[in-house]
Amino acid sequence: MKVIEGGVTAAKGYKAASTAAGIKYKDRTDMAMVISEVPAESAGVYTTNVVKAAPVLWDKKVTDSDKKVTAIVVNAGIANACTGKQGFDYCEQTSIAANEALGFKDCEVIVASTGVIGMQLPIEKLVAGTKAMVGKLDGSIAAGTDASKAIMTTDTVNKEIAVSFDIAGTQVVLGGMSKGSGMIHPNMCTMLGFLTTDCDIDKKLLQKALSEVTKDTFNMITVDGDTSTNDSLVVLANGLAKNTKITSEGKDYETFKQALYFVCEFLAKKMASDGEGATKLFEAKVVNAKTKEDARTLSRAIVGSNLSKAAIYGCDANFGRFLCAMGYSGSVFDQSDVQLYFESKAGKLLVFDMGVPLEFDEEFAVKIMKEDEVTVFVDMHEGTAEATAWGCDLTYDYVKINADYRS
Amino acid sequence: MKVIEGGVTAAKGYKAASTAAGIKYKDRTDMAMVISEVPAESAGVYTTNVVKAAPVLWDKKVTDSDKKVTAIVVNAGIANACTGKQGFDYCEQTSIAANEALGFKDCEVIVASTGVIGMQLPIEKLVAGTKAMVGKLDGSIAAGTDASKAIMTTDTVNKEIAVSFDIAGTQVVLGGMSKGSGMIHPNMCTMLGFLTTDCDIDKKLLQKALSEVTKDTFNMITVDGDTSTNDSLVVLANGLAKNTKITSEGKDYETFKQALYFVCEFLAKKMASDGEGATKLFEAKVVNAKTKEDARTLSRAIVGSNLSKAAIYGCDANFGRFLCAMGYSGSVFDQSDVQLYFESKAGKLLVFDMGVPLEFDEEFAVKIMKEDEVTVFVDMHEGTAEATAWGCDLTYDYVKINADYRS
Repeated sequence: MKVIEGGVTAAKGYKAASTAAGIKYKDRTDMAMVISEVPAESAGVYTTNVVKAAPVLWDKKVTDSDKKVTAIVVNAGIANACTGKQGFDYCEQTSIAANEALGFKDCEVIVASTGVIGMQLPIEKLVAGTKAMVGKLDGSIAAGTDASKAIMTTDTVNKEIAVSFDIAGTQVVLGGMSKGSGMIHPNMCTMLGFLTTDCDIDKKLLQKALSEVTKDTFNMITVDGDTSTNDSLVVLANGLAKNTKITSEGKDYETFKQALYFVCEFLAKKMASDGEGATKLFEAKVVNAKTKEDARTLSRAIVGSNLSKAAIYGCDANFGRFLCAMGYSGSVFDQSDVQLYFESKAGKLLVFDMGVPLEFDEEFAVKIMKEDEVTVFVDMHEGTAEATAWGCDLTYDYVKINADYRS
Repeated sequence: MKVIEGGVTAAKGYKAASTAAGIKYKDRTDMAMVISEVPAESAGVYTTNVVKAAPVLWDKKVTDSDKKVTAIVVNAGIANACTGKQGFDYCEQTSIAANEALGFKDCEVIVASTGVIGMQLPIEKLVAGTKAMVGKLDGSIAAGTDASKAIMTTDTVNKEIAVSFDIAGTQVVLGGMSKGSGMIHPNMCTMLGFLTTDCDIDKKLLQKALSEVTKDTFNMITVDGDTSTNDSLVVLANGLAKNTKITSEGKDYETFKQALYFVCEFLAKKMASDGEGATKLFEAKVVNAKTKEDARTLSRAIVGSNLSKAAIYGCDANFGRFLCAMGYSGSVFDQSDVQLYFESKAGKLLVFDMGVPLEFDEEFAVKIMKEDEVTVFVDMHEGTAEATAWGCDLTYDYVKINADYRS
């Protein structure tokens, strides 16, 4: 497997477009479209929030059905959440507009929205934007990159990646883009992610691979503990690579899943490090836990704690806060089995050893914590399971961004 | 029942003292002692964090036993958490020092600590401070107030209250003090609280009343979602009011419980509004929920969300964030049954009505949210249960305080 240039347009048969539809922002693109030249299989994972946005309800219906998908239409600025029946009708109207303009019949369209909750979409602008994008569809790398920029809200960088790999002698490509910076806390997946592949793979296996990979990638990041109403991760597979179709779990399935994992982990980490106001990526790695679930719970609690995040921002090796977060995570353990280290490119430092706090070199600790990526490494000495979670530091700018989001 | 002057020394037979023991702070008092002239019954509720501080383990042993309690010794600056066997031994040494100096035998001492986790206490200073305070014990209101100041960490105001009430024709007094500003998220109770009463009440009923009242008071506040390693709430009852002893649940028990509720709610709200960096008290009131547990879960999720808290700080009526928090709380409901209002002294405004977002007067919304105490009022239309939770806004100062706590 190797990383190649591009994102959603890297695989065969995918085109993208973006436009400034004027939904909420001025002077920037705020809609994106991704299409597959031939209808594609789809799979999706969605938010567990019981207040689900209209597009989440719409898309789940689509990816749960046997119908193939031709297009993805996304807008930024308004989330189409808490908008009642009207919001759901708008999803249908967008889908109809896209299919009519594309000339497809009997195919489904994925729609997604991100932005302010509790506000109706200007549907005329959305339909006009959809039609305008159909005329601009383009299979270039640049068109994919532009699409990844059009779906940003408080994101400061666009997020895309593509890889190529080999399935039974045939080259296959998987690419993707995602957005997300605030209201980010894993529970199914986080904010919006769209993956496109030319791999020929059975729909059920596509869904299985996506669901499994999400658990250790998108579901292991957090920015602020707020699980969004709109979280959606959708993958399209159009089969144009013409590889021997993957129809059972085996070597080819594992190869595909590995590529999917790589792409999802890359995008997830990119979202964590671009968390609202963040200055660094904050990673928690828990090893030798009793069970995989314990390892996930503990590592997520560490990166989720406001106090831990503030300490990471301040380069303060206040390790008690990390132990405190582990303690209230819901996982049960004995603190006298625990070792805790701070780690980064600058080195690794043991600060808590089998229940006992150590005297340590504060200067070295600060040096470790000043790096762009800081890891809290915890050895539980209780089993063999491990997990890694990603978050970011808590800064003044997070508060600034969110105290005045709507204006 | 009426509110009277004072705190822990208001009830008959209680004295207090404080001292500058130099444990971590300079130029301020950092230890407090409260004693009962006659050994008192005790009851306690403690953190559910599995990483429990040494004093929590010590105190639970004490309040679970049949022995009576003579004194409470508290220090601020170092939490004596994550300190292994040595930390627990220090609790015993403090207890022995207090009992020897006080001349009591066969009685127990409650010890409590608050401050940095993962650092050993300077035990000589703690013992010296304990002995020094025995010489300064004083039953005055001022001595109680000084004690409530000595246990503060990042608190900006001291927290105390006292009430008097009537049990079968006899006047009884209940007073208390608490501290807590950060690492505050309810689970048993929050940070340190000490209550003293001269009421004569059976130990089991004392514990029952405390456990029940805690659920709707201390357990309903949050500052940052971080459940501390040290949370402890202890009540002493010395019987010196000489009321007819409360030995069963009935009118007298209810009167006592009502007073306990009043005192606990007062102290809990005071902690929420003095949350680290807070500029206002943020209340969530959920009515007509399916069950009491749903009402508690929903109201706690609203005041616990970083995004909600930032919106409250920015006076931004971004109601979708509150619905989003309710949605991921774990409680299951239908958004089309929900009404959401903003409310304060300035008025009440419906912004979300049975699943539909309303167009509302933004200027009036800002006016409501600019008050010192702001309520999000939610009608679930699903049952008859209700609950109220308290928190505070998320501000730059919260980040500032916690990015550089240890230095």
